[in-house]
Amino acid sequence: MNQDYIQADPWSIIEQGFDKEQVKSSESLFSLGNGAMGQRANFEEDYSGATFQGSYIAGVYYPDKTRVGWWKNGYPEYFAKVLNAPNWIGVRLKVNGSSFDLNTCKEVKGFQRELNMKEGWYQRSFIATMPNGLEINAKITRFLSLDLDEVGAIKMELTPLDQDAEIVFEPYLDSGITNEDSNWDDKFWNTTAVHQNDNRGFIEAHTMKTNFATCTFMHAEAEYEGNRVDSKPGAKTETLVSTIFEGKVTKGKTITLTKFGGYTVSRNHASNDLVNAANSTLDKAAELGFDALLEMQKQAWAKIWEMSDITIEGDVKAQQGIRFNIFQLNQTYLGRDSRLNIGPKGFTGEKYGGSTYWDTEAYCLPFYMATKGQEVAWSLLEYRYNHLEKAIENGEKLGFTNGAALYPMVTMNGEECHNEWEITFEEIHRNGAIAFAIYNYYRFTGDYSYIPKMGMEVLIGIARFWQQRVNFSGDKQKYVMLGVTGPNEYENNVNNNWYSNYMAKWCIDYAMENLDKLQSEYPEDYERIIAKTNLNASETDSWKKVSDNMYFPYSEEHGVFLQQDGFLDKEMIKVDALDKSQRPINQKWSWDRILRSPYIKQADTLQGFYFFEDHFSVEELKKHFDFYEPFTVHESSLSPCVHSIQAAKLGRMEQAYTFYLRTSRLDLDDYNKEVEEGLHITSMAGTWLSIVEGFGGLRVKDGQLNYTPQIPKEWKSYSFKINFRGQIVTIKVEGSKSSFEITGSTELTIKVNDQEVTLVPDKVVEA
Amino acid sequence: MNQDYIQADPWSIIEQGFDKEQVKSSESLFSLGNGAMGQRANFEEDYSGATFQGSYIAGVYYPDKTRVGWWKNGYPEYFAKVLNAPNWIGVRLKVNGSSFDLNTCKEVKGFQRELNMKEGWYQRSFIATMPNGLEINAKITRFLSLDLDEVGAIKMELTPLDQDAEIVFEPYLDSGITNEDSNWDDKFWNTTAVHQNDNRGFIEAHTMKTNFATCTFMHAEAEYEGNRVDSKPGAKTETLVSTIFEGKVTKGKTITLTKFGGYTVSRNHASNDLVNAANSTLDKAAELGFDALLEMQKQAWAKIWEMSDITIEGDVKAQQGIRFNIFQLNQTYLGRDSRLNIGPKGFTGEKYGGSTYWDTEAYCLPFYMATKGQEVAWSLLEYRYNHLEKAIENGEKLGFTNGAALYPMVTMNGEECHNEWEITFEEIHRNGAIAFAIYNYYRFTGDYSYIPKMGMEVLIGIARFWQQRVNFSGDKQKYVMLGVTGPNEYENNVNNNWYSNYMAKWCIDYAMENLDKLQSEYPEDYERIIAKTNLNASETDSWKKVSDNMYFPYSEEHGVFLQQDGFLDKEMIKVDALDKSQRPINQKWSWDRILRSPYIKQADTLQGFYFFEDHFSVEELKKHFDFYEPFTVHESSLSPCVHSIQAAKLGRMEQAYTFYLRTSRLDLDDYNKEVEEGLHITSMAGTWLSIVEGFGGLRVKDGQLNYTPQIPKEWKSYSFKINFRGQIVTIKVEGSKSSFEITGSTELTIKVNDQEVTLVPDKVVEA
Repeated sequence: MNQDYIQADPWSIIEQGFDKEQVKSSESLFSLGNGAMGQRANFEEDYSGATFQGSYIAGVYYPDKTRVGWWKNGYPEYFAKVLNAPNWIGVRLKVNGSSFDLNTCKEVKGFQRELNMKEGWYQRSFIATMPNGLEINAKITRFLSLDLDEVGAIKMELTPLDQDAEIVFEPYLDSGITNEDSNWDDKFWNTTAVHQNDNRGFIEAHTMKTNFATCTFMHAEAEYEGNRVDSKPGAKTETLVSTIFEGKVTKGKTITLTKFGGYTVSRNHASNDLVNAANSTLDKAAELGFDALLEMQKQAWAKIWEMSDITIEGDVKAQQGIRFNIFQLNQTYLGRDSRLNIGPKGFTGEKYGGSTYWDTEAYCLPFYMATKGQEVAWSLLEYRYNHLEKAIENGEKLGFTNGAALYPMVTMNGEECHNEWEITFEEIHRNGAIAFAIYNYYRFTGDYSYIPKMGMEVLIGIARFWQQRVNFSGDKQKYVMLGVTGPNEYENNVNNNWYSNYMAKWCIDYAMENLDKLQSEYPEDYERIIAKTNLNASETDSWKKVSDNMYFPYSEEHGVFLQQDGFLDKEMIKVDALDKSQRPINQKWSWDRILRSPYIKQADTLQGFYFFEDHFSVEELKKHFDFYEPFTVHESSLSPCVHSIQAAKLGRMEQAYTFYLRTSRLDLDDYNKEVEEGLHITSMAGTWLSIVEGFGGLRVKDGQLNYTPQIPKEWKSYSFKINFRGQIVTIKVEGSKSSFEITGSTELTIKVNDQEVTLVPDKVVEA
Repeated sequence: MNQDYIQADPWSIIEQGFDKEQVKSSESLFSLGNGAMGQRANFEEDYSGATFQGSYIAGVYYPDKTRVGWWKNGYPEYFAKVLNAPNWIGVRLKVNGSSFDLNTCKEVKGFQRELNMKEGWYQRSFIATMPNGLEINAKITRFLSLDLDEVGAIKMELTPLDQDAEIVFEPYLDSGITNEDSNWDDKFWNTTAVHQNDNRGFIEAHTMKTNFATCTFMHAEAEYEGNRVDSKPGAKTETLVSTIFEGKVTKGKTITLTKFGGYTVSRNHASNDLVNAANSTLDKAAELGFDALLEMQKQAWAKIWEMSDITIEGDVKAQQGIRFNIFQLNQTYLGRDSRLNIGPKGFTGEKYGGSTYWDTEAYCLPFYMATKGQEVAWSLLEYRYNHLEKAIENGEKLGFTNGAALYPMVTMNGEECHNEWEITFEEIHRNGAIAFAIYNYYRFTGDYSYIPKMGMEVLIGIARFWQQRVNFSGDKQKYVMLGVTGPNEYENNVNNNWYSNYMAKWCIDYAMENLDKLQSEYPEDYERIIAKTNLNASETDSWKKVSDNMYFPYSEEHGVFLQQDGFLDKEMIKVDALDKSQRPINQKWSWDRILRSPYIKQADTLQGFYFFEDHFSVEELKKHFDFYEPFTVHESSLSPCVHSIQAAKLGRMEQAYTFYLRTSRLDLDDYNKEVEEGLHITSMAGTWLSIVEGFGGLRVKDGQLNYTPQIPKEWKSYSFKINFRGQIVTIKVEGSKSSFEITGSTELTIKVNDQEVTLVPDKVVEA
């Protein structure tokens, strides 16, 4: 399949021409989301060709059971499945008595999709010749409101071109939907009531097992020649409700259907009040009308871009790519609800059921921290604080005691909901990323208040976990950590993964450091937390013993820390010596072969060098980068960004740019031939990092912004914005010149290439 | 649940008294099998209490799909599920219009079950008072014919004790059965035809997916006071057929129902001929009648015991235990069909779907080799030869080339049918056991012909696998084997498991040794095999390089080979220092904790010392035994026998006896509280080994039998028989005295405690 069909454009994603082979890919690429819900770019009207139907509601999932590994104690009870939710976008079309279906049209001309990222809407237009010969022009515009986040809006404009036509719109709701990812044709939704009410419809349905109650709703209006078209009740079955609008349309004139739809859910309303809530939401939307709501949408997106845009001059595709990433991140998560988080596929597909991975803390947090108000980053931290009790329960299931917290690898509600032992039981470094996020938040925002309020308890639970998870090796006379899976998931059950050991030590040290700080600076919080957690000196002594005597595998020969014990026993053939036909190895090789190979799925030791850059010299980074990069296959979308940032830091801009390209248009150019399954949302934050931390060299040190700007030779200029402690700092890099500008009312002293530069509001300063 | 309810008896398993809590356990313990089919001791009549229904047909399974690990390349397509087959034993009973059900009887007196192991039948008798007050005496005898192995026979004798009664027998067949082990209430059988024909019934059904065609059949007769009771057609539904016999029975008189039933299957007959085949089988059985068939059964079992009995004097429970084990092994596999093998649960339960594990070669082969004609052992070897092509395909799925064979961990037909990567991809030592069995067969039988005929090709395929599976470690300057699971399944994905490395080297050496032998002694076979396998000198050179430079982890400090790299990094707390509440660890600990512990599920390094005893001195064995035994939890039923044999070899008879006790009555005394799930069939061969190789010290060296007899002090005497190259050799050990006797016509020189002793047929020789 050719994925180069997306037109280069700085602000829009544009597809031209109708290709049935591309429908599923486009459904992913043109997905819409507003943080609370989202959907793939499925056609509103019936389509008999290949399609992957998907509407998703944030936080709604199904606990899929599995019996594999039943004999392994401590196994999660379920695997969370992202559920395709009832369809509210559907509009059946009849023209002169024939169903309209793009798959059966004789000819489709001028087909175009546009996802306007600047303004947050999606439009499809075409001229189609139906089997009955009738030629019709269609323009369909859709958006999911950021302001009324339970509502989406659709406007369908139809114009018969060659003859008068009788056009019937039948907007409907349908809860008789299925999941692609369903092993056994399971039924996931139970529909309890279907209501029909003038031009409105409502379907009450709840998920099986998890019992999330939802009301899917719609309100439809049609207009022709300035007059409302009367509605009449359509179908009403156990899982479907529709309204019918019929209009006789003169050749060349346009009939318009407006449909508002969406969901009210039990997370936000009483279960028995969902229809009422839906009605009042629809009242608001209908009163505003499509155009006013769209105007609000444009303003809302303008605000988002104001704080988060990155511009690139001299490379339209790069410009489009980075904006696509920023746009999708904002479609997925807006930080308004601390019960929600960032799923790896957002609202664009079913894969990776379960919404929260360590991706959030390791990759996404810096983006949200720098492009939103700090309350959004706080929300992300609070999400984990709210799950602390469940993390302690999860630790208990695995035999840990005394409040040791093991956060789940994948979760919807704090419980573990993944089902492979090598991941859930062993990929424990996730705990480290959660602690690191607390440190990172304080470092960036300067707001310490999260730690005494919530973070300290999290840090204690995590330190307890690490202290219990290691054991003293009589052989090595050091603390070792056996049986883990590091960030490089192409190794399972290894001993002394350097990254995990380093993280464990750091987490313990950081917890102790903050305990000391609280004791002297926040004595009340300290007392409260000590009482709540029953922490005593003998326990922190045992933490210290572990931290002081942690084992780190090291190769004298190579002068590098080893990814894990025994790494050098592998057949050390570099990636570029592998035959291309063997790549990607996760599709070409069996699992056992991958495991015993030296190949690294994503940054592992180098991930540690990324998080703890300050702990190592540039020379050390270089050595490790040169040792590990040649074995890294980057078969995770989360991998190239770290390498890009490090290559930039080492002054290797060409290499940095090469890595950058692998993520920035990963989905738009469908490198992995899988975009039809959905987009790689969390890795999009990595692309942002590649520019900001990589090319821009942004770091926060001692409360001060530091830049070391570089620019790929392919670009004329680029700029990005950072919301730093209440002021928006814009950097523009053009050749060897950088210029800065800040908003607000106070001066700000930053460092550029280690030189202090003082910025004055609303004045461009070159540096 | 109290499992001490089995009465001590040298030849029978006897339960007295009716306890509803024990029904499921007794259903396992009183299971019947004849190599071709088998069934749990479910009641013939309806029973509304807790029961685990199970009838099983050898070689019939269902491929259960799993999606876990879908992203791991090379994954097996299915997990084989042992299927509960259509029920042919059922007989509904009505007495004076009321259904008879032991669960609802007012009183059950004199309830007894007897499994007569000497003669191969099972009988249940009781006096029950029904809810309507009627008292009835019942005696029900059942067996599965060894001679007509498609047929089983049931005789039900009913006597109303306190009043005349109208008794209705309704023998039936039922294919509307379910599996206990069913994730989603799947349907496994598709019934295509139900036939009713006088006093016979037939149900044709095939398994879903695997499409095994079966005809379940029955023939019933009833007799009262010397007269046949007329039959009339009973029910006939889509999945059930029955015949009805009604009799007015005078108080104190007995009415008798005889039912023959069983299966004809497409493995043995044309699919469209199954009903015909069933009819002719029933003709034979009916003509012989119940009593004559039972007489043949007794004779057949007498023959089995003649070659395989072990007697123990001075300990009835031990006597009963060992006979139970020998009996069950013979019920499971008789070596008549080289397409069949020995499932870990035989015909007694559903667990461990899939019939063939390495258990067969590692534990069962010596039993069958020594207690049957050598053609049975040949059959077991041939089974693997027939699967060689599939083993090569399995190797190819995992990326091996050039005819490298990886036998499956679990199989029904040569394909891998287990579904955990750490087992299927990594527990590759199974390949070694298959090669070792070839060596063991030749060592014991002296029959070399298997190797030129079939075995050499298997050995080549296996040697090729090992050569490809290792890699040269630049760090160690040796060949290493990364990412394996050894016999101790409480370790996954370890490096340089000593047992696997040792096995690999041995397999390569043994293949080369036999190639040399064939070249000089069987040149025609050699040429044929070289041509067929495309083997050349450069390939065997590469084998030799691996064999000469294999790495074996070793601890200088402890003077032992290490189970795997890094074993000494564990927290080396011995098993006896563990709190009892933590045992068994596989029920009390999470999987990650088990993995990083030093605890050994079953003999691993010591398994190597068992197979290759001759390669090591007694002093070395002692060192390794003393090092590993304290960390062994024996949470596999296959574990204690190896330790028992080795303790005996080290002269530690008390310890040897303690280990022996852990297996000999494992099921009868239900140590693991799980007998209701079925019996541990393959480990029963281990019990046999404990006596023969452990206490008796039997070895075959240089074609000669060697004994080093010892006796547990708890026993007065014991004896066992060995079929050695056509002669049955009986040893009897009593105190410090041993006596020998042989059948046949030639003298046989054996060694007892390293002294040569010549045995003359039919003369008892003391030694």
